[in-house]
Amino acid sequence: MQVEARLKKLGIDLPAAITPVANYVPAAKTGNLIFLSGHGPLKEDGTLITGKVGADLTAEQGYETARRIAIGLLGTLKAEIGDLDAIKRIVKLLGFVNCTAEFADQPNVINGASDLLVEVFGEKGKHARSAVGTNALPFNIAVEIEMIVEIEG
Amino acid sequence: MQVEARLKKLGIDLPAAITPVANYVPAAKTGNLIFLSGHGPLKEDGTLITGKVGADLTAEQGYETARRIAIGLLGTLKAEIGDLDAIKRIVKLLGFVNCTAEFADQPNVINGASDLLVEVFGEKGKHARSAVGTNALPFNIAVEIEMIVEIEG
Amino acid sequence: MQVEARLKKLGIDLPAAITPVANYVPAAKTGNLIFLSGHGPLKEDGTLITGKVGADLTAEQGYETARRIAIGLLGTLKAEIGDLDAIKRIVKLLGFVNCTAEFADQPNVINGASDLLVEVFGEKGKHARSAVGTNALPFNIAVEIEMIVEIEG
Repeated sequence: MQVEARLKKLGIDLPAAITPVANYVPAAKTGNLIFLSGHGPLKEDGTLITGKVGADLTAEQGYETARRIAIGLLGTLKAEIGDLDAIKRIVKLLGFVNCTAEFADQPNVINGASDLLVEVFGEKGKHARSAVGTNALPFNIAVEIEMIVEIEG
Repeated sequence: MQVEARLKKLGIDLPAAITPVANYVPAAKTGNLIFLSGHGPLKEDGTLITGKVGADLTAEQGYETARRIAIGLLGTLKAEIGDLDAIKRIVKLLGFVNCTAEFADQPNVINGASDLLVEVFGEKGKHARSAVGTNALPFNIAVEIEMIVEIEG
Repeated sequence: MQVEARLKKLGIDLPAAITPVANYVPAAKTGNLIFLSGHGPLKEDGTLITGKVGADLTAEQGYETARRIAIGLLGTLKAEIGDLDAIKRIVKLLGFVNCTAEFADQPNVINGASDLLVEVFGEKGKHARSAVGTNALPFNIAVEIEMIVEIEG
């Protein structure tokens, strides 16, 4: 329970897996890979962090948003595989930042997720990544991130 | 031929695989995974469904557009693997909705594809998914979807 | 050293791998797959090609930008696996074009990368692909491309 111990030390409570409201699932396993669905930023009260970075949110607020999403992704992973110590590597993130056409600091926003993953998993948490902007996201959430994880075979 | 029987029951004729007009292919196989290229919505007369959801198309029209793309993805899969019963699982969709900055119902649009896949494949059709917006797509198509599928080993 | 010989013939010098300025890595290997992070267009002088295609850059300039990114992706691959002849197949590209809402020729832009990969790898270079638009990219770069590659087992 190394990973869960580290989460506790960081004061992080994992949420339950997201509940998709459609014909898809929070995560799909194939071989040793788990593909996690795009996750949005759920606050503890169940509401979403919404708005466009560069207009409604600052890059710093975007960073906190991405960090929250990473915690949600870990909650989904925990529900999917039970033991977070079974994770061999965080392989890849793809992060979409809902932003103005002038906003150009998507990397710092998605760092909120990347930093959390490395805080929790150390070397195993270092992943490939793409960070891009977009003009619109579901329910006007500020950030959406999908993830690929490798588990022990 | 279970999957093809279900397609027939749904009144769905699969189109031929898309013909990329460049140095790429409709699908690439690696191990047991098939990565399908981003597909747009080809109508039966060979023209494309174009426009921005939230301005030129409603969410409902977007849903029908995504459903048509899913049928096109299955046409490409059929051309690639021959037997659609060899599909072990639809692993993941990534759907881009060409939309206004105010449009926030990308999930309902991409549901058009997700619902079709579950209608056709049942449990095997349940996939991880990301649905995002974008300000622009090739040829101004309304929706573009890429897919990852696992086939029997 | 077939691939490197072809690069030399094309007059292409590979750059070093990109240096991520955050908690992520240029590429992550899982099984026989390598997931490469989203790469931007670094010029030889170390500056970036920036601007929105359809306003600041033409489609042709976008093509050259994507070609340059493909060269950068190969530089990262070379640093990751040492021998580019170990590549079994270029599996997939996902290309984001920073563009106006009216721009609709993303495929021709991303062709700059696809064409280079087929020039260098021949049949092995033919990949699945998605090309989409976006309203904003990091540092206002004109194009961002991520790639999945299969190496010999």
